[in-house]
Amino acid sequence: MYNIAIAQSGGPTVAINSSLVGVFKKALNSTQVLKIYGSLNGIDGILNEKIIELTKFIRTEDDCEILKRTPSTILGSCRVKLPDYAIDKAPYEKIAEVFDKYEISCFFYIGGNDSMDTVLKLDNYFKSIEKDIRVIGIPKTIDNDLPVTDHTPGFGSAAKYVCTSLCEIIKDSEVYELDSVTIVEIMGRHAGWLTASTCLLHDMGEVAPHLIYLPETKFSLNQFFEDIKEVQKEHKAVIIAISEGVEIDDSGYQESGCTSQLTDAFGHRYLSGVGKYLERAISDKLKIKVRSIELNVLQRCSSHLASLTDIEEAEQIGSEAVTCALNGESGKVVIFKRVSNSPYTIEFESADVSDIANKEKPFPLEWINKSGNNVKSDAVEYFKPLIQGELDVVIKDGLPQHFKLIKEV
Amino acid sequence: MYNIAIAQSGGPTVAINSSLVGVFKKALNSTQVLKIYGSLNGIDGILNEKIIELTKFIRTEDDCEILKRTPSTILGSCRVKLPDYAIDKAPYEKIAEVFDKYEISCFFYIGGNDSMDTVLKLDNYFKSIEKDIRVIGIPKTIDNDLPVTDHTPGFGSAAKYVCTSLCEIIKDSEVYELDSVTIVEIMGRHAGWLTASTCLLHDMGEVAPHLIYLPETKFSLNQFFEDIKEVQKEHKAVIIAISEGVEIDDSGYQESGCTSQLTDAFGHRYLSGVGKYLERAISDKLKIKVRSIELNVLQRCSSHLASLTDIEEAEQIGSEAVTCALNGESGKVVIFKRVSNSPYTIEFESADVSDIANKEKPFPLEWINKSGNNVKSDAVEYFKPLIQGELDVVIKDGLPQHFKLIKEV
Repeated sequence: MYNIAIAQSGGPTVAINSSLVGVFKKALNSTQVLKIYGSLNGIDGILNEKIIELTKFIRTEDDCEILKRTPSTILGSCRVKLPDYAIDKAPYEKIAEVFDKYEISCFFYIGGNDSMDTVLKLDNYFKSIEKDIRVIGIPKTIDNDLPVTDHTPGFGSAAKYVCTSLCEIIKDSEVYELDSVTIVEIMGRHAGWLTASTCLLHDMGEVAPHLIYLPETKFSLNQFFEDIKEVQKEHKAVIIAISEGVEIDDSGYQESGCTSQLTDAFGHRYLSGVGKYLERAISDKLKIKVRSIELNVLQRCSSHLASLTDIEEAEQIGSEAVTCALNGESGKVVIFKRVSNSPYTIEFESADVSDIANKEKPFPLEWINKSGNNVKSDAVEYFKPLIQGELDVVIKDGLPQHFKLIKEV
Repeated sequence: MYNIAIAQSGGPTVAINSSLVGVFKKALNSTQVLKIYGSLNGIDGILNEKIIELTKFIRTEDDCEILKRTPSTILGSCRVKLPDYAIDKAPYEKIAEVFDKYEISCFFYIGGNDSMDTVLKLDNYFKSIEKDIRVIGIPKTIDNDLPVTDHTPGFGSAAKYVCTSLCEIIKDSEVYELDSVTIVEIMGRHAGWLTASTCLLHDMGEVAPHLIYLPETKFSLNQFFEDIKEVQKEHKAVIIAISEGVEIDDSGYQESGCTSQLTDAFGHRYLSGVGKYLERAISDKLKIKVRSIELNVLQRCSSHLASLTDIEEAEQIGSEAVTCALNGESGKVVIFKRVSNSPYTIEFESADVSDIANKEKPFPLEWINKSGNNVKSDAVEYFKPLIQGELDVVIKDGLPQHFKLIKEV
């Protein structure tokens, strides 16, 4: 019989609690598992012994269903990076001590690239001291930038939110009979997957977004102005989707004689984000009505608009992680392998965490158009299955119900 | 037999097309109505003869249902203010000429405070030339700041969106074990109704938002810092709802020795909004993690999260407007009168447009707490019925379907 522990780490998504439910239910129904612990605030909860017995908090099938509809991380999160074992072994010894105390022999860490670093280091450590603790990573990130896996839990729901909101923003932007630019800033510091997913609107007959910019390509401010002028020839309301991570080359712009300092009083160019920066630049240079909209954290926490495919896959991947651990695997991440687009079929596999930790998968250059200002329709078939289906939201008095964990340990 | 015309004006909401459906269906089923025209871009469409026959575009019951689920204004909008007749009678004569040409004798204008000015002026004009053209106003605004009526179509859906998003933002803000402030900036330049509606979260057991600031009360930056420190004694993650229209008195702040220029390079203090301004001030003064979120246009166009009560009322008020006009009324606005909160019951009445045009109804001071930093629970019973019920969204391939009007006239 095994005791297991689950923790959640990194930035929130709407699917991360579904993966926890997946682990929980599979473990609960396994004759090999005795106790199911939750660690509060990721690996911090192990280090500081903030550990709860999940069965005391998640009691019914209804609890599981509400939890699947609750955004963010019910156990809290952390941004801790474990030190190199060679430099500082104290945290590793503390973790081993706590695992011993609670007789924990399987540890599931739900997180992104950075969190997989913790999985890798812990697995290496336990292997080095020849201790049979199985450490399994469960991917999640709205950025979709994990290598090896076809996609990541949390991404499909974020894409569904972004695309739905964009559909609505387009309607809002087209009401007046005047030239205007609407910039929608979308999350993704290094990888443009989420911004690129707005090409799904083209598939449903929208011309907008007319321009899509990703961090994977170069972005010149002067070219940007030219792109807008080109779109304006046919469309009064220009709609632009742009990744927050786009790096702006404004050298040509400064040279062209524009003197406005587009920095704030602190000298920060991007303090208010790329969208606000470009809003000012357009207003300054093109003298037309412009508005920037930052979708902000709502794109990662809007569980009322989750993709059913995403939520179900997130639960399944949690369940598969338990199977993996009970089969004796460790230092692995459960991943999706896409078998076909139509009908959409995936398989689960386990991959070496060393192939995933600290690595990023950029949006493929072959799916970006030559001008670097739009996404090719080839990407539609990749994105489309991921946003399908809607989760029925549980509403009380007009507002969604979320799971509450009483955090007293 | 009458020909009628409908136009939409002012800022978008998710209910304004429902009111159009209300007018359309009632007129379609009336033996007294012959042709139903739509004027593109508000009164501009009459002035420039951009007029369509709505029956050519809205053909089926399904069209009506999709239209009710389509945000913004399907006929476009405008921000035109008619001149005083005494100063410039040309536009009035043009409107009369176009009405004659199309034999239009009832005109329905769906809009907010400013649009009601158009209703008032047109009605005065037609009465002055003794012409039997009935001009009826149909209210809409997410700001809920129209006098006489209990509330306005569009407000309930906006409040439902704001409250739902805030529930999700709270979950997102609480994941890390560190002191933080999250500022949510909500629409409302002069009236705080929409921001105040976040008190509904308290009714469902949330302590957050811990602080609520409305334009109806004074806002001192120094007192704001004190308010935050007070909340921090009990809550690590401080959540603040604030109206975009709050006027910040930062004199005490400047005097306290803080030297940072909180303006941008253009000298605009609020260019990026109140939220961004306060984000910088908190970061500068309190040195804690702070994030500001501007809900932006999504609060007025997120039809995927509409209040069923709001959408149904918006349709009914359109229908009542037709009854009003056919009864010979003019210069009137159809309004809601609340009969009871529980069960929630309203009646429709017609009010003189002169009591509504160009006037604003602030959020009642007696519903704001003494410190001016929160809303009393007395307001809950007012807001609660307005966000009840959900409209089933029509989804295709994972995204909501919206009505498309081919705008060629």
